[in-house]
Amino acid sequence: MSDTFKGKGASRRAFLRGSVAAVAGAAAAGSARAATPDPLITEVQDWASGFGAPVDDAPYGLPIRFESDVVRRNVPWLTADTISSINFTPIHALDGTITPQGCAFERHHSGAIELKKEDYRLMINGLVDTPLVFTYEDLERFPRENHVYFCECAANSGMEWAGAQLNGAQFTHGMIHNMEYSGIPLRTLLEEAGLGAAGDLSDKWVYVEGADASSNGRSIPMEKALDDVLVAFKANGEALRMEHGYPVRLVVPGWEGNMWLKWLRRIEVMDGPVEAREETSKYTDLLADGVARKWTWVMDAKSIITAPSPQMPINHGPGALVITGLAWSGHGRITRVDVSKDGGKTWETARLARESETKALTRFYLDTEWDGSEMLLQSRAIDETGYVQPTKAQLREIRGLNSIYHNNAIQTWHVDSNGEAENVEVS
Amino acid sequence: MSDTFKGKGASRRAFLRGSVAAVAGAAAAGSARAATPDPLITEVQDWASGFGAPVDDAPYGLPIRFESDVVRRNVPWLTADTISSINFTPIHALDGTITPQGCAFERHHSGAIELKKEDYRLMINGLVDTPLVFTYEDLERFPRENHVYFCECAANSGMEWAGAQLNGAQFTHGMIHNMEYSGIPLRTLLEEAGLGAAGDLSDKWVYVEGADASSNGRSIPMEKALDDVLVAFKANGEALRMEHGYPVRLVVPGWEGNMWLKWLRRIEVMDGPVEAREETSKYTDLLADGVARKWTWVMDAKSIITAPSPQMPINHGPGALVITGLAWSGHGRITRVDVSKDGGKTWETARLARESETKALTRFYLDTEWDGSEMLLQSRAIDETGYVQPTKAQLREIRGLNSIYHNNAIQTWHVDSNGEAENVEVS
Repeated sequence: MSDTFKGKGASRRAFLRGSVAAVAGAAAAGSARAATPDPLITEVQDWASGFGAPVDDAPYGLPIRFESDVVRRNVPWLTADTISSINFTPIHALDGTITPQGCAFERHHSGAIELKKEDYRLMINGLVDTPLVFTYEDLERFPRENHVYFCECAANSGMEWAGAQLNGAQFTHGMIHNMEYSGIPLRTLLEEAGLGAAGDLSDKWVYVEGADASSNGRSIPMEKALDDVLVAFKANGEALRMEHGYPVRLVVPGWEGNMWLKWLRRIEVMDGPVEAREETSKYTDLLADGVARKWTWVMDAKSIITAPSPQMPINHGPGALVITGLAWSGHGRITRVDVSKDGGKTWETARLARESETKALTRFYLDTEWDGSEMLLQSRAIDETGYVQPTKAQLREIRGLNSIYHNNAIQTWHVDSNGEAENVEVS
Repeated sequence: MSDTFKGKGASRRAFLRGSVAAVAGAAAAGSARAATPDPLITEVQDWASGFGAPVDDAPYGLPIRFESDVVRRNVPWLTADTISSINFTPIHALDGTITPQGCAFERHHSGAIELKKEDYRLMINGLVDTPLVFTYEDLERFPRENHVYFCECAANSGMEWAGAQLNGAQFTHGMIHNMEYSGIPLRTLLEEAGLGAAGDLSDKWVYVEGADASSNGRSIPMEKALDDVLVAFKANGEALRMEHGYPVRLVVPGWEGNMWLKWLRRIEVMDGPVEAREETSKYTDLLADGVARKWTWVMDAKSIITAPSPQMPINHGPGALVITGLAWSGHGRITRVDVSKDGGKTWETARLARESETKALTRFYLDTEWDGSEMLLQSRAIDETGYVQPTKAQLREIRGLNSIYHNNAIQTWHVDSNGEAENVEVS
């Protein structure tokens, strides 16, 4: 007899303890709904007595109409113009770790451009032995790798610095997605051009820019460029969406999303950083004393409870409750996630759905019992470096209140006795 | 100095050996395209001098129009009616391992039905202590798991038994997809109903059926039901597509796709199999002597080269070439994939993109050089049990020519000197 039969069955607890409807007529010990005959069970339904829809007219299948609220959201007042805007992943409604491209957040600085593979060119110039221009077909001939990584906007949760602002995990933490990328290590392309001319690489940088009007140029130290950066052309198996940089984008694992150049056009090897607009006037962190932190690239360990949450209230009474959410770290793997129901006074260790991958989203679950009383839900991520996700108070003590970027503080949801949740602060 | 700087650069080989365009004016040793100034580089393009499109009008982003051929395909003549039909994943155009739901193959027996979560009921009855009926909300309260699994139709590659029939990996091997599922172990729900009444579980079965008119009922031995079967409601993070069984389907890892019940309605614990239509007249394998094999559930180790392939010809001349494809096994992990360029006379071991997950697609690459002469490309998968994917001749010797299902034979693509590929047989 196989292992699957050993010590199981009666020894396991029943989760819903008879609150599930027993079939009419059957012994229904303590069932809350046993007495009610259910027409959905007792009567033949239309969908069981006739044909459904053929699928041959859906070459690319879309979500069913009942899920029309599980979409990216744009907050009109967050940016001055839709041509330079951002939208949010509906993380409250998702499970698992993979983000479908169709509902994956994206940020653009001058709109999403349509760039054919045939028109695509990638230049590598500067301190290289031979400046090169790659076509898309050229890129397809290099050895490629597959990795799952999260991409988080530096401004994710930025509105929360000043206090509880946005009511919903999609809006407070939805500037993030997690996809399986297929691409070429940037190292490989830099070596194709030849780095001999650059001499000692330890003090060299690359400047990367996109083909859109904003170009969004950023400087990346050579050590990162030669480490795990990818020149990627597929996400979750298929071509990148236009708004995610079709046909080629940069993947900079663990680092802020604005460095993940879309419509990647040029990579220049330089002897120093450019100090471009997007790394001076933007994407720096103004501290309380007026000094601005720069080169704050890595996204520190962070987590969020996606359900229950303001957009996902508890839809049942006391008893079995699944609390779930996401955790991630730009420094590597998530080793533990704790959940608090009392605003951080006491903590329980959550279950990680799968072993954490480096610089990727990790799904956690706390399978618990709800007594029907109000809760102050929080989650706290710990990564492989031992770093513990800070409270808002701890973060403000060091960083002040002027920042927009890199808010990885613990988030609090107040859940009332009706199961409704809202974004709150705890002192 | 970090590891990333050690022994790199000049020591690495150049892949395209100067066949990439050198920038005009730069030293272009042996570059085939150096002499041609490229207006896409020398002239400012429209997409770099104006705004792109805002994205706020795309709450659910679709593939860019240039990828309109990367879609599921239905082959009208393969089934008598579109109401009982199948379509194919465009595996030739994908990379990595995840299949987006939008282009993931599906098979339906009486059309795809629209079933609201509010109208969803799952009954567990038969030899259980308390027959139960679960609503969708009930299911959300049970502990759930996340796993990536492949789902392959038993008929995948079925047309190829009689010889090379369909010209394209999408059509010969596209009845497969690979997604990250979130769901509840079936074991948990069976134990909620209580298995005490079933007595010795080692000879018990479950009968599962869907809410559509076909119901597509199948019998599953209890050992599998208590092992790794999931009652799933999310794939790649989001709700199942209607055609994939929204809101709830069964996931039966490693076993033929027709057992992955869609619109899952009922699970009955029984003291034997039902021998239903879909497991007697269908989904059995007729051998040469007229005997039909039944209960052939597991999908044996198999692989396919997705590029180059008939739909993905080589689009460049001799030199660096990436040969890539997918491998999988219903018995567990893929441990090795070999690639042959000469119809199986000699073999090279391919590179696995990531460590293989059990019962999931594994991406392989062979980074090689093409001399421009014709090739007979084959791939051969080996799984953790030591099983080696068979040749067509080996499979026919045992199974004859009457079968439709469970063809996991090695596939051959003939590539001519122009890089065009076609489906052929080698004796």
